[in-house]
Amino acid sequence: MAINTKVKADHNAPGVTEMLAKFAIEHPSKGWSDSVDQEAHRTFANWAGCAIGPSTHETMVAALGAVMELAPAGQASILGRKEKVDIANAALLNGISSHTFDFDDTHLKTIIHPAGPVAPAVLALGQHLNISGRELIDAMVIGIEVSCRVGNAIYPDHYDRGWHITGSTGMLGAAAACSRLMKLTPAQTQMALGVAASQPTGLREQFGTMTKPFHPGAAAKVGLMAALFGKHGFTSSRRALEAPRGLMQVFSDKTDWSEITENLGSSWEIALNTYKPFACGIVIHPSIDGCVQLREKYNLKASDIAKVTLKVHSLVLELTGKKTPVTGLESKFSVYHSCAVGLLYGRAGEHEYTDECVNRPEVLALRSKVEAIVDDSIAEASADLVINTTDGRELHIFIKNAVGSVEVPLTEVQLKAKFIDQSEPIIGAQKAASSWELSREIGNCAHLGDFIAAATF
Amino acid sequence: MAINTKVKADHNAPGVTEMLAKFAIEHPSKGWSDSVDQEAHRTFANWAGCAIGPSTHETMVAALGAVMELAPAGQASILGRKEKVDIANAALLNGISSHTFDFDDTHLKTIIHPAGPVAPAVLALGQHLNISGRELIDAMVIGIEVSCRVGNAIYPDHYDRGWHITGSTGMLGAAAACSRLMKLTPAQTQMALGVAASQPTGLREQFGTMTKPFHPGAAAKVGLMAALFGKHGFTSSRRALEAPRGLMQVFSDKTDWSEITENLGSSWEIALNTYKPFACGIVIHPSIDGCVQLREKYNLKASDIAKVTLKVHSLVLELTGKKTPVTGLESKFSVYHSCAVGLLYGRAGEHEYTDECVNRPEVLALRSKVEAIVDDSIAEASADLVINTTDGRELHIFIKNAVGSVEVPLTEVQLKAKFIDQSEPIIGAQKAASSWELSREIGNCAHLGDFIAAATF
Repeated sequence: MAINTKVKADHNAPGVTEMLAKFAIEHPSKGWSDSVDQEAHRTFANWAGCAIGPSTHETMVAALGAVMELAPAGQASILGRKEKVDIANAALLNGISSHTFDFDDTHLKTIIHPAGPVAPAVLALGQHLNISGRELIDAMVIGIEVSCRVGNAIYPDHYDRGWHITGSTGMLGAAAACSRLMKLTPAQTQMALGVAASQPTGLREQFGTMTKPFHPGAAAKVGLMAALFGKHGFTSSRRALEAPRGLMQVFSDKTDWSEITENLGSSWEIALNTYKPFACGIVIHPSIDGCVQLREKYNLKASDIAKVTLKVHSLVLELTGKKTPVTGLESKFSVYHSCAVGLLYGRAGEHEYTDECVNRPEVLALRSKVEAIVDDSIAEASADLVINTTDGRELHIFIKNAVGSVEVPLTEVQLKAKFIDQSEPIIGAQKAASSWELSREIGNCAHLGDFIAAATF
Repeated sequence: MAINTKVKADHNAPGVTEMLAKFAIEHPSKGWSDSVDQEAHRTFANWAGCAIGPSTHETMVAALGAVMELAPAGQASILGRKEKVDIANAALLNGISSHTFDFDDTHLKTIIHPAGPVAPAVLALGQHLNISGRELIDAMVIGIEVSCRVGNAIYPDHYDRGWHITGSTGMLGAAAACSRLMKLTPAQTQMALGVAASQPTGLREQFGTMTKPFHPGAAAKVGLMAALFGKHGFTSSRRALEAPRGLMQVFSDKTDWSEITENLGSSWEIALNTYKPFACGIVIHPSIDGCVQLREKYNLKASDIAKVTLKVHSLVLELTGKKTPVTGLESKFSVYHSCAVGLLYGRAGEHEYTDECVNRPEVLALRSKVEAIVDDSIAEASADLVINTTDGRELHIFIKNAVGSVEVPLTEVQLKAKFIDQSEPIIGAQKAASSWELSREIGNCAHLGDFIAAATF
């Protein structure tokens, strides 16, 4: 029988729903530093490349097939493709695409992928409303702030329970961003946040299936629709986030309201955003980075390697402990496979996570030599790696922060290379170069048309 | 800081996702008794009346306004209206409408409103696919079975946490029903259930706002879309419901798998369905019934009443304890208002829950004389009522089961009267009579066209 484990309700929570709604509408355009604005542009450009790359993937073919059964109006574009669909389903599809390769941006404090639910909602609605690039960046910064602050308030308990926090907070960011784009009042935006609060998306159980990338897409669609409902006078609880039976207390025991109320409008979560160099879960990155560095330093070949011993935080194996992945998708959740390709090829891009690669004999052989040991004295962002060579050497490296972290950010050259690597096979070299330039400078564009034309057919 | 209250994960849960998918597809047409089939018809007819009644309500005007921004294709009808929209949004809108007056059917074991998320999904997709009435009833019985069995397995813990269980289980029933209508394979249906599992809708915090009726509508839309995703080859966890990080363990501590696995296909939850005589939360019904009965027995006038003392289970006040409701919608969550109108007018239909009625001086005067006392020795389905009259009498009644319960079901005459009362002001007497007859016999109709024509413009 049931025992309600929610020991006590917090009846005195501050009015964060109202506070976030007011913030979303009233914070001034570019009301942050140049460096924050630069990070917002990096976020958008990285996101766009990640959405273009998988646009012909079977995940997208299946999702588009389902959406097309609705005979949607051609209101907004799908990056990397020629079809147009209604704004809600464009938000869904671009959101799915951008997380399909698990290659999008990460807010490391919460493991939220911030752009995934927010950017596609803003892009779809923005195209339809013919907004400026400046409005797009403003709305995206605001939306990401809302999602990540809610995430900060409930992480890690919420995530530990099994929620995929990207989808279960992202609808709030998308609702805030879309409310701003449509110039709703704070009161309407508060209602929009409430409608969105009733619709969290995402279970960690789905990791390794197409439904994982579905989560940010669904959150984008929910948020966009919630803003439309708010615009048309739909009502919801004024305390939908913070009430004892509001979203946050219902799906998390930890509810640290100060994470939302403190420095709202003066500190910016998007400034902490990071971009993956490897096309897999972020917790594997320190291990891959160590493999790539040892390979380069000692010019290692597969035949040199007798044994690989990895010491990592328990979360790493909890999330990515698949020992014998069979599909490309499963291999993204395998630290064993990831170390093998890092050692063999010196990289772990999308080409290293295909169905073919995961079953390649040389990968299988090296994978079986990787042992992972849990050591919670090692931080989640770190990894300790020892390689025993066939000639008896013991090679050691400790990675405190992996490449792509806040501490060791991707350079502009690396970010561009990542964009081009993903987009060129889909839209060709010229469009890839052009859509990189336009996305990287989107805040200066009077409208979104040139970027969308470059990034679609 | 966070403490994960989920003490231990159940890794050995039976494969209920697979089991429900197989059941949804393979159980034979009308594979149940005549009395179950009759209850299914009562369920559909009652649901249809409840969807027609509020079709011009401000809740529907707002929702339709939001949906129309998508310029949807005219694939399916909205009951009581002339507009057509795409099947996903028709499911949403009919689902919202049917719960707007809080007058729809109730599965008392779980307080699920079973038809709300399932019937609109089946109706919208069924109209588009041109199915028979028999197929509609079959899919609805199956869908409701899926939602209510999942509900039985997690109630009451899940509900106690603050989830609105109608929306947070309903998407599974809608997905199962729509998968059956499209003749998906069990494997595709298992994926559809998985996609739906990632998208529970509904917080109890929204009670008293438009977002409460939004919940079944959203669940209908989510389920229908999930079935389309399943059809097109989208993948999800094969254990999306039962895995340690699947839906049921994530959002409930109670997970009694036997509620799903036992007698599946031989006992039927729809047989337990009930239909409200009063347009408000079911937990108030025994109190209103008591008021109406005392009023009739003693021919009471408002001026006769000095004091009303109600003893009820704590849940009644938890759900409907609003002492001073200001709007019609809020008054549905006020046992005080409900008793006042029951005593004054001998009924508590939609006309007794308007903004005008809630502020009527005679209602306010009598409402202030109602006192409610928590007594958990009284069952949730019961109420004990004492009226002290101005001439010194003490009148007592104990209601064990209210009219409209399983034990005291609405008669056929009462059910028809409820349908006509709701639909006639919207679609006129002739269409109301015709749509009652057609919905009540829908299983014998070769197609849904005649019913839909009668129930729309």
